[in-house]
Amino acid sequence: MDFEFFMPAHLIFGLGKIKDTGVYAKSFGKNALIVTGKSSAKKTGHLDTVAKSLEKEGVNWTLFDEVEPNPLTTTIDKGITLARNSKVDVIIGLGGGSAMDSAKAIAFGVKREGSIANYFGPQPAGDVLPIILIPTTAGTGSEANNYSVMTNPETSAKKSFSSPDTFAKVSIIDPELTLTVPKKVTASTGIDVFFHALESYLSKRSQPISKPLAFEAMKLVLDNLKGAYEHGDKIEYREPMAWASTIAGMAINLSGTCGIHGLGHPISAYYNIAHGETLAAVSLAFLRFSLPDASPKLAKVAELFGIDTKDISENEAAQKAIKALEEFIEDLGIPTKISALGVKEEDIDKLAQNAYENASSNLKSSPKFPSLEDVKKIYRDSL
Amino acid sequence: MDFEFFMPAHLIFGLGKIKDTGVYAKSFGKNALIVTGKSSAKKTGHLDTVAKSLEKEGVNWTLFDEVEPNPLTTTIDKGITLARNSKVDVIIGLGGGSAMDSAKAIAFGVKREGSIANYFGPQPAGDVLPIILIPTTAGTGSEANNYSVMTNPETSAKKSFSSPDTFAKVSIIDPELTLTVPKKVTASTGIDVFFHALESYLSKRSQPISKPLAFEAMKLVLDNLKGAYEHGDKIEYREPMAWASTIAGMAINLSGTCGIHGLGHPISAYYNIAHGETLAAVSLAFLRFSLPDASPKLAKVAELFGIDTKDISENEAAQKAIKALEEFIEDLGIPTKISALGVKEEDIDKLAQNAYENASSNLKSSPKFPSLEDVKKIYRDSL
Repeated sequence: MDFEFFMPAHLIFGLGKIKDTGVYAKSFGKNALIVTGKSSAKKTGHLDTVAKSLEKEGVNWTLFDEVEPNPLTTTIDKGITLARNSKVDVIIGLGGGSAMDSAKAIAFGVKREGSIANYFGPQPAGDVLPIILIPTTAGTGSEANNYSVMTNPETSAKKSFSSPDTFAKVSIIDPELTLTVPKKVTASTGIDVFFHALESYLSKRSQPISKPLAFEAMKLVLDNLKGAYEHGDKIEYREPMAWASTIAGMAINLSGTCGIHGLGHPISAYYNIAHGETLAAVSLAFLRFSLPDASPKLAKVAELFGIDTKDISENEAAQKAIKALEEFIEDLGIPTKISALGVKEEDIDKLAQNAYENASSNLKSSPKFPSLEDVKKIYRDSL
Repeated sequence: MDFEFFMPAHLIFGLGKIKDTGVYAKSFGKNALIVTGKSSAKKTGHLDTVAKSLEKEGVNWTLFDEVEPNPLTTTIDKGITLARNSKVDVIIGLGGGSAMDSAKAIAFGVKREGSIANYFGPQPAGDVLPIILIPTTAGTGSEANNYSVMTNPETSAKKSFSSPDTFAKVSIIDPELTLTVPKKVTASTGIDVFFHALESYLSKRSQPISKPLAFEAMKLVLDNLKGAYEHGDKIEYREPMAWASTIAGMAINLSGTCGIHGLGHPISAYYNIAHGETLAAVSLAFLRFSLPDASPKLAKVAELFGIDTKDISENEAAQKAIKALEEFIEDLGIPTKISALGVKEEDIDKLAQNAYENASSNLKSSPKFPSLEDVKKIYRDSL
């Protein structure tokens, strides 16, 4: 069995660590670009904290606050122009996956010609500005991987790119930042963590280092996500969710996701729905389709759900795991059907085609490789 | 809870991967120094394989083959002089922990003044030659951490140094290389893997990323070390032992070892006994001393040994784990007493003093911090 591990980001974990941003930024230069969303980092005061920390260390900063959920390549192109014009030395991504992925894409694009839309897929090693990532949600795990997911508005392709050099130099994971995440976002980002871990485990690319990380992440989500959802102000739930997100992010860097992300991405590309919700809504039909191929692994997942698997077959245990997952999702107030997200039956051909074109590697690494007709059927079963 | 993760080495795992050494070396320069032991890399043909791979890619190489088990600072100083005189661009460590640790120390020392003996302990970031590590035993985990353990012959201090820059750039973990490891070395290096994992878990510095790695490593050792010991030519045991070694190496990089290594090091400093054997021989008394403080964690370890812990106390489960460990060590033909290694009662004061002087951080991070008298008692209980 051949595999690799490479995750060079220096992860700094702890309450209040955001206040050290300036110390790390200073080691990379004098001018920083802060990449963030349109409002939440301002409302929560996190932007202010970062800015003060930079100023304290004598680092100048420019703000790019135009990142939308499911960031567009056209938005990132604007950020690249601003970074170039401001002659920045370091890019700081502050926010959820959108802000962090945009920061990576800007740091990469500054050193290259043309639109970022030309750089989907795996990219060779090369010059990239130093990146500091500061997640404000427990979801994407972007702080521990080199992926950047973008949507090209011209083609509705929601795809990722990565390069050996788009890891953060430093990621500051400060669980305190997640205390103010609204209930609905806590649920949708938290379930994303679970699917990162589950899919990296189910993936044919699952390997000996990603597996224990994925298991630990799944366990932490099952133990803490409901608490974080119901008692968002309690750090004892937010802290383990923050590190679950990070280690699940490491796991997908090693093993990728599979069909759940493959089928979820087209929905958020067309409907602009929170990423985690699209995953939850396709996951159950996808997992049922994946039986019995995925049964041995799902039987292990059943144990994480506390299901006694001693006297039942792997297939029965897998079915019970899917049922337990359904209840877990419902308890978080997340729809388990794509119809509840607004998807209509007549859209399915278009979604399936999009998944097949843009997520072929996710589909191929799935426990059971779905045909185009299978993908349509999974969407229909999810209606 | 504050913690950090930083392990920038690119790990390349797989059968036959040693043949790609030249490809990686070439990316760092034209002249390589191969650091290895006095004979085994020659006998096994691994040195020849590395040399051919370098030549195929047009990389010149110089050989430094004077590394002894428990390498001396004076030996490393010789390697540094050779590396300087040969103007090498990259250091390749080929062998067990001694060769890999020496390679790190040489790569570090080339760029600094004076003897390597001046650089014990944590060192600041700075210029270090690129390092490629190729483990030929499953034991040290040096390929996945930045530690280098050396013995100063003038003071009999066996201590480690580390720097943020003494990680390998690339580590090639080719389990095929371990097929020829003799039975006794398989046992002593394999039990070292177990103690890396166990101690990083028991350590007060144990943290959320090291814990799942340590657990996975312990499980792999318990499942595969006896097989590797009894059927050394079977790759199905060697492969999981190789990756157990690597992830246990990652775990100690995050959480360190504790008192078992702290009490083991002085024995190999004075007696030049295989590192793993010294650990096994002090481990049982150390763990018994550590009760009840270590009982909650050792109860979890009991489960890895297959002990049913449902209806017994944590303390009872911990005692059963220690008993099971004793049997596991005995089955590997490793002594469980330091007297069997030649240690005499009159040496205990000297050993305890040495442990206290050179391994204070290991002792401090132990589940129960032993006084100097406690250390003497643990040695006496191990006689």
